[in-house]
Amino acid sequence: MTFSLTVHATAGAARAGVFVTPHGPVSTPAFMAVGTLATVKALDPLDLEAMGAQMILANAYHLHLRPGDEVVRELGGLHQFMGWNGPILTDSGGFQVFSLEGLRTVTEDGVEFRSHIDGSRRHFTPESVIRIERNLGADVIMQFDHVVPGQSEEGVAREAMERSVRWAGRCLEEFERLNGQGLGSRVSGLGSSRPETRDPRPVQVLFPIVQGGIHASLRMQSVRALVDMHDWAGYGVGGLSVGEAKADMYGMLDVVDAALPADRPRYLMGVGFPEDLVEGVRRGVDLFDCVAPTRMGRNGTAFTDEGRINIKRADFRTDPRPIMEGCGCSACRRFSRGYVRHLFVSDEILGLRLLSLHNVHFLVSLMRDARAALAAGTFDAWSLDWLARHHSKPEAQAR
Amino acid sequence: MTFSLTVHATAGAARAGVFVTPHGPVSTPAFMAVGTLATVKALDPLDLEAMGAQMILANAYHLHLRPGDEVVRELGGLHQFMGWNGPILTDSGGFQVFSLEGLRTVTEDGVEFRSHIDGSRRHFTPESVIRIERNLGADVIMQFDHVVPGQSEEGVAREAMERSVRWAGRCLEEFERLNGQGLGSRVSGLGSSRPETRDPRPVQVLFPIVQGGIHASLRMQSVRALVDMHDWAGYGVGGLSVGEAKADMYGMLDVVDAALPADRPRYLMGVGFPEDLVEGVRRGVDLFDCVAPTRMGRNGTAFTDEGRINIKRADFRTDPRPIMEGCGCSACRRFSRGYVRHLFVSDEILGLRLLSLHNVHFLVSLMRDARAALAAGTFDAWSLDWLARHHSKPEAQAR
Repeated sequence: MTFSLTVHATAGAARAGVFVTPHGPVSTPAFMAVGTLATVKALDPLDLEAMGAQMILANAYHLHLRPGDEVVRELGGLHQFMGWNGPILTDSGGFQVFSLEGLRTVTEDGVEFRSHIDGSRRHFTPESVIRIERNLGADVIMQFDHVVPGQSEEGVAREAMERSVRWAGRCLEEFERLNGQGLGSRVSGLGSSRPETRDPRPVQVLFPIVQGGIHASLRMQSVRALVDMHDWAGYGVGGLSVGEAKADMYGMLDVVDAALPADRPRYLMGVGFPEDLVEGVRRGVDLFDCVAPTRMGRNGTAFTDEGRINIKRADFRTDPRPIMEGCGCSACRRFSRGYVRHLFVSDEILGLRLLSLHNVHFLVSLMRDARAALAAGTFDAWSLDWLARHHSKPEAQAR
Repeated sequence: MTFSLTVHATAGAARAGVFVTPHGPVSTPAFMAVGTLATVKALDPLDLEAMGAQMILANAYHLHLRPGDEVVRELGGLHQFMGWNGPILTDSGGFQVFSLEGLRTVTEDGVEFRSHIDGSRRHFTPESVIRIERNLGADVIMQFDHVVPGQSEEGVAREAMERSVRWAGRCLEEFERLNGQGLGSRVSGLGSSRPETRDPRPVQVLFPIVQGGIHASLRMQSVRALVDMHDWAGYGVGGLSVGEAKADMYGMLDVVDAALPADRPRYLMGVGFPEDLVEGVRRGVDLFDCVAPTRMGRNGTAFTDEGRINIKRADFRTDPRPIMEGCGCSACRRFSRGYVRHLFVSDEILGLRLLSLHNVHFLVSLMRDARAALAAGTFDAWSLDWLARHHSKPEAQAR
């Protein structure tokens, strides 16, 4: 069944399952690497495949501006364009558009803004964004939503949440209109619509986004309104990890995940620090994404079981150990800290790739470990132990 | 027999053979990718392995400054440091030191210069350079030579050539002193000295460098003096492709290759444009190196059978064809010109890698084709045909 989630094991709110897409299954919980511009920065699709990355992200806002969603469509859609035959999800660009402080005007119709690249005037509506995501052709596409800062007061958060619900309805209507006879809009029963048939209409599914800031009642209202509107194949949880306290984020996850249908995947948007992934899985999240592993990798910062390290540290100069001892990634299996440090000090491109690779592998592996612990029935102890070890090593971060 | 060359096929001056090193055989003629700072820029050693690159280069001058040749030695030597278990050659840095116009003072003893990184004062002698190359641990190490511009008049070229010969003698003496009982200094018969034994003294061989500018008599004198001095395992031909006319370069190759011992590999230093490789093979060259494929790749220029193309061209925006049609490289098998153009326009790191990969693959494949033609007895026709096709497409370069 296309776009179905099957849960195999649970531990409290946490669960392990398989989310089926037209481009293959995704074992959940899973971390999705971010390929904003149709490339996970500094990595090759083969690197992602080799490390067991299952599903990746791209961004509708960025790809609409460069190279243009119609160029991507003309070149065969995102999968063919970027050489990734696994599942892809596109974010709608709501987060990006609403981050353009001072450059945008919001109305009920949509958002007018200026391109961050050339300053050209652009207009996004729920309908136009769905058409962009249709051109891009990802497996899962996200609604266009109204994102406000994490600490927004209730009135502001309510307005954005209610608008996001209305926009979810408009996105759905446009999505179903484009689907014509419904191809790609159904949650299941699409076994005959294989991507290999080169049907110009990709088999896609639309996720709405739960909003409501750090206000439990708003989050509940958002979930109820969306669930009442449609039998969605999955749900995004947005507007978190945007400046609010960690405790607030975890509190919202407790509220939201308890209210969402248990047989649909939940995608916590933009959250991807190691400890947040483990805390998220404990609260029932199935999918995560974040630019942190590649962005920090390009800055010379590596995730390790003992916290973060800066590979440029002088004492790594002749360090023969891998970036992280015991790590099975392609960088750690082959190179020393001394070598990776040398690459960074000398501005060599391979350094950016090796540390990005290690960091994405770290999160992909962390979710693999979480799935294994869920399957083995040891998740609660495993996750508490992992969090205790991670939190007990602040000095590695401070260095 | 370590460091022996066996010639299997010839066509006029051209020859195909196998050059054996402690880190494996090199089928010749071969192009060596340049990894100046112990990394072939933008590529992974696995990329080089996958495309059939056999032997690569690193640079003693650059690695002495960063990270320091003693750091490389402490981290296991170049092979382990950079994760490349195939043959490696280090250039001595003569070319780099003599390129530091105004920053250097040359005496018979050596060269005093300022580091291009921090301006610190440094002193290279033939002996100190051999100690640096010993620390780095490449299979083949080059003598420290005196390089002058390609168009230098006879007096200047003679002085540099004669000094290079004297410095070859000093390099050899220091090399043999370091080798103690001769380990690594012999051309053959070292079957028992495998690198796996972790002998701290790497099994290396030293190549002298033929100089003499564009003056045939000086080139002949250089060859005779070097051949009389020692039974070298191979010979570098330096001071070409440094500003002289192509015809002058080819003329010097005719002179030098006819005079060098036929059973020793000839390495034409720093020469690596496609047509120069084919012309060089026709004149008996076995090994080439050049930064052009990676440097041009990072600039958005791709080698093709029809000449060079700039991937950023506007008309490639929706071009579904690979960088070069018919190319079997990992970039061309997977990605369109439209995608690679998008990566360059968006400053994405993957673009640098894909075009560098394609360009190095282009030269590695070109030499593979040359070897196949030599083995098949069709080299003369193949090479003339290749040159005619390459020269008949100037418009591809002009665009």
